[in-house]
This record gives sequence, structure tokens and C-alpha cells, in this order.
Amino acid sequence: MKIVVDAFGGDNAPREIIGGAITAVNLHEDIEIILTGDADRIEDELNYFNYKGDKIQIVHASEMITNDDVPTSAIKNKKDSSLVVALDLLKTRDDVCGLVSAGSTGAVLAGALLKIGRIKGVARPALAPELPNAKGGKTLLIDCGANVDSKPQYLQQFALMGSAYMKAVHNMENPRVALLSNGVEDKKGNELVHEAFALLKQTEGINFVGNMEARDLLSGEYDVVVSDGFAGNVALKSSEGAVQFVLQEIKNAITQSGIRGKLGALLLKNVFKSLKKKLNYTQSGGSPFLGVQKLVIKSHGSSKAMSIYESIMQVYRMHESQMISNLQKGLQENDQVENSAKA
Amino acid sequence: MKIVVDAFGGDNAPREIIGGAITAVNLHEDIEIILTGDADRIEDELNYFNYKGDKIQIVHASEMITNDDVPTSAIKNKKDSSLVVALDLLKTRDDVCGLVSAGSTGAVLAGALLKIGRIKGVARPALAPELPNAKGGKTLLIDCGANVDSKPQYLQQFALMGSAYMKAVHNMENPRVALLSNGVEDKKGNELVHEAFALLKQTEGINFVGNMEARDLLSGEYDVVVSDGFAGNVALKSSEGAVQFVLQEIKNAITQSGIRGKLGALLLKNVFKSLKKKLNYTQSGGSPFLGVQKLVIKSHGSSKAMSIYESIMQVYRMHESQMISNLQKGLQENDQVENSAKA
Repeated sequence: MKIVVDAFGGDNAPREIIGGAITAVNLHEDIEIILTGDADRIEDELNYFNYKGDKIQIVHASEMITNDDVPTSAIKNKKDSSLVVALDLLKTRDDVCGLVSAGSTGAVLAGALLKIGRIKGVARPALAPELPNAKGGKTLLIDCGANVDSKPQYLQQFALMGSAYMKAVHNMENPRVALLSNGVEDKKGNELVHEAFALLKQTEGINFVGNMEARDLLSGEYDVVVSDGFAGNVALKSSEGAVQFVLQEIKNAITQSGIRGKLGALLLKNVFKSLKKKLNYTQSGGSPFLGVQKLVIKSHGSSKAMSIYESIMQVYRMHESQMISNLQKGLQENDQVENSAKA
Repeated sequence: MKIVVDAFGGDNAPREIIGGAITAVNLHEDIEIILTGDADRIEDELNYFNYKGDKIQIVHASEMITNDDVPTSAIKNKKDSSLVVALDLLKTRDDVCGLVSAGSTGAVLAGALLKIGRIKGVARPALAPELPNAKGGKTLLIDCGANVDSKPQYLQQFALMGSAYMKAVHNMENPRVALLSNGVEDKKGNELVHEAFALLKQTEGINFVGNMEARDLLSGEYDVVVSDGFAGNVALKSSEGAVQFVLQEIKNAITQSGIRGKLGALLLKNVFKSLKKKLNYTQSGGSPFLGVQKLVIKSHGSSKAMSIYESIMQVYRMHESQMISNLQKGLQENDQVENSAKA
């Protein structure tokens, strides 16, 4: 299985990106990686890691897209950037099944839409991060920013795509799908949520459990949380901000607590370390961009090697379980249901 | 100054509610409290506290509104409930300046709208909780659920009302007002945010600093965060949920970490205690319902005496600083600006 990785996207490019790629090919015999970006620098890095295998290929790209670039024009104008070259490979080569980039979110989404295109029948592809939850599992939040103005039909498709993803990547038989609202009762929500709720209730092939409150986003009670991109973004970033806030408050309180507190903190060093790891998005995988014709994972901008490796594994599992064709099937079944209802 | 307190709203009613009222009159000579609810039980509680002063008055009410009641019909049908009796006192008596209730949020909001009514010129009153922030201060989030479908003009008024509140209650000269969005750049946001952004830029008398990300809600970089009620609710509850999640994860990690971890936790007991207190919404004040003709504070359902006391103090400070008339002035000035722009 060939996966293309944008070696020059993200805060820790290219070293951590290349480190993640090496880990993937070392651990999985059937994975081959194509790295895009400045070939000399990539080769230097491969030498740094002392990597000698033949499962990493380099395709040279002289430019880089940064967070300061305007996404759509960067995709159009920076034709020799590591991201655009990666997208072109993904688009043109049938043997390349997916792409991983930790670069500008806007550019990755715009590029995937422009170059790869939507799956037939998908109105709006969506960005869907996996969040750690209190049960030790993962909860998929879809959409978290690709579609800030959404229609009920988009949300229905988000539910179908999110469900197909959790089945594929986490082997869930019947993922619990909930609609992000301002309360659990059926009547809660804004206009969009009311209409989406009615649609989701009659959607075939998903396990829709109703409305949920943002308070329970990380509870582990739900596997797929469906939202328009604006509220989803607010939920994701509020959670991240609150986690940071608590950790910082603990640090401050310990600093102020004298020798007793410092000794306590020392004894709890491992506890805090494992906690930080669990809550650290840079250590977990990336966000799939669901609904485009090939597999695209947007890794966090601050991704380290382990996160890039996890992102590659997300592509691997989506490909192995034929997620895209399963997703298409789900969309078609509901299309038929809707059409027969209309007829 | 007379303030009416619904003695039978909230999980800890009536004891904690009455405890809060007693604290207020004991600490502030110029505060008088009217408690509404079952007179016998209130008297029992006053005896329990051994309260002998004459600054607490009781007005009997035989019914209670619970979270299971449908808000609007409860206000209409339970005429002798502690909340409706309190609202009637607030409405009819000129010497009563404000109301505190820890009862059903829906019933408090519906009751305030139906019985007290909007300030002239206010399109939609808004619920605005104060959140603790990383700078040790408070950030007001307006609206967090009263208006799940909002128009740009509502958001403009939320900004004016929130700003007037922070000036009144926290003596801020020039509160920084930000618009909740999916990024800090001017062009970020959904349709509603785009339109609200343009309006806020030209609003007189507020210090509008632009868009903000939900990640920075608790950063202390903003004093008033403006949002439609749906996204505001998501931001508030995601933050609460994430705080709970981290604290629970710490607890779990300590439990699993053996004798070393337990000793560390013991040494950090005070750190965790003060942290919990800081993050505990039941210890801080309530949410003002801004835009109605009299002062209404909705306390958290799980409020204890200290939170009820803080809520009473919020009414006290809003009244002392003549917040409502200042708020009206701000609305009128912007009305004139808009009308002259139209002319």
C-alpha cells in the first residue's frame, strides 16, 4: 500500500514527519511511503535516522505552503509545493491510496477539494478529528470547521460518513451517533438541529441515539458526534482550551504551594506525564477529511513522529477496510430511501 | 435595597438558599431579602441557622417549579410557586430591585420575559454566565442558551449589554469585547458572525477587539465574549465537560499509581482543593439575564450558600451602579447612530 506524506507541512517538518514515515515502513511490511518536498533535505534526514530501506521514495518539490498563504490561491499558484505535489500524486496514481499532511488546514482542505474532488453524492466533505474520551476510547467529531454554514442534509451525510469511518478504523459494529445540541431532549436545538434531528431519525444504516450536550463530548457515551462546522469547531477548541487551562492552573498552584507541593508533584510526575500524553493531540492521530474520493488525513500542525505514524495508520486501516466504498453504499441506500419516499 | 430570593429553586433548596440570604444580610447593612416559598419550612430553616435579625421577610408560596415542568406553562399555571410569587413581587413592587433563583433555567427565563418584560429597544434578552479565567478574573459569555437562533442585531445588543454589565459589576473601564468565531482573522466565521462582525465594528461605546477562537475562552484575554445562544452553550458546556474530564483522569491516574502516587496526592491535597474551588461553578455567582426590565440572576442549579450570596451581590452591584439605565443609554446611542446612518 502506497501512502504519500507531505514532508514539509507542520511545525516540526521535515524531521518529525520523516520519523513518522520511517516508523510506519519499519513496523508494517506492506506500507510504502512517498515523501514530497526538498529532496536534498529529505535525504539528509533519512541519513540522520540512518534509514537504509527501500520502501521510502522521494518526489522533489521546491516550494512550501505556510499558514500565511491564502489556501485556495496557494493551491493554484504554488504548483511545486510539497502539498500540491503530494495531491497530484494522490490524484494521478492509482497505486497511491492516501495522503497525510500536517500543513495548513485550509490548504489541505482546499487542495483535497480542488485536486481530488468529492465522492459522487457527497454535498460537503467534512473534517473529523478523533477525540480521546473518558472510557479510554475515541469519539469522532464531524464536522469541526470545513463547513461553517451547513444544511440539515450535510449533517445527515456527516453522520453516515462518521459512522463508516468508526466502523472502518475502530472496528465498531454499530457506532452510536449523536447530534450536538444544547440539551438531550428531542426538542432542543436551533433550527438546523431540529431539521437535522428529523432527518437523522429516518436515516438507514446508522445508530442515531438523539441529541447530546456539549458537556458529554468527552464522556465516551457517543462514538460519532455530528455538528455543523462552526459549532463543532467551538466544541473542539473550547475543550482544548479548558484542558490547557486546568493543566496550567495545576502548575501555578503547585508553584505557589511551597516545598510540600513540590514534593507531591515530584511523586506524581508519572501521573502527570501519562495524563499529558493522553490529552496531547500531537501524540494521537490526525483528522480524516471525509467525503473526498481518496483518503486524506490532516495531522495536527504540531505533530511529532508518533502522530504522523498514527495518521499513516489511519489511512492504512481506512484502506484495508474499504471505507470509501462502504461509505458510498451508505449514501446510496439513503438516497434510495429518500427518492422512494418522494416518489 | 430589597432583593427577592426564590427559596425553593435548585438542588440544595431551601437550606443553602436561605444560608446565602442570611450571609448577605449579615455582611451588608443595606440589603434586605424577601424569601419566597413554604413559610413554615423557611422559618424552620431560619431557626436552624439561629437567625434573629429583621432584614429577612418571608412571602408564602405553596408550590414549586421543577426541571420536569414545561417552563412557559409552569409560569402560567403554577401561580403560587416560589418562582412566580418572587417574579410577581419583582414586577409589582418598586422597592424590590432584583431576583435570584437557582431553579429551572427555562422557567426563570420564561418567567422573566413574561412577567418582567424586555427593556425598551432590546430585541432579545440574553443569559450571560461569568467564567473563571487564567488571569484570575472573570469573562462574561453572552448568550449561552436563551437565543439559539440569533440575528446579527441581537449579537450587537449582547455586546452592549455584556459591556455594561462588566463595567457595572467588575468596575471595568473599557471591557474588551470579542466575537466567538472559528479563528481570529476578520474573515473567519459563519454568515451570522460575518454580519455581526461588521455591525460590532461600527458600534459606539464598546471596545470591540475582533474575532476570537473558542480555545481562548478562558485565557483572560477577553472580558466579554459575544455569541449566539447555541454556539455559546456549546462553548460553555464543552469547557465544563473538559474540566471534569481532566480532573477525573487525574483521579484515575492517581488511583492506579500505587503508594507513591497516593502519597503525592496527599501532599497536593490543598492544591487540588483550591483548584476545585476555583473551577467550581457552584461556588461562584450566577448568570445575569440581561435585557429584562429588572435585575434577574439565574444561579447554578447546584448552588450552595456561597454561590447564592455571590448572586445576591451581583444584583447589589448592578443596582448600585445603575446598570440598567447605563445599558439603556448605550442602546439608545447606537440606535441614533443607526437611524442617522439610515437617514
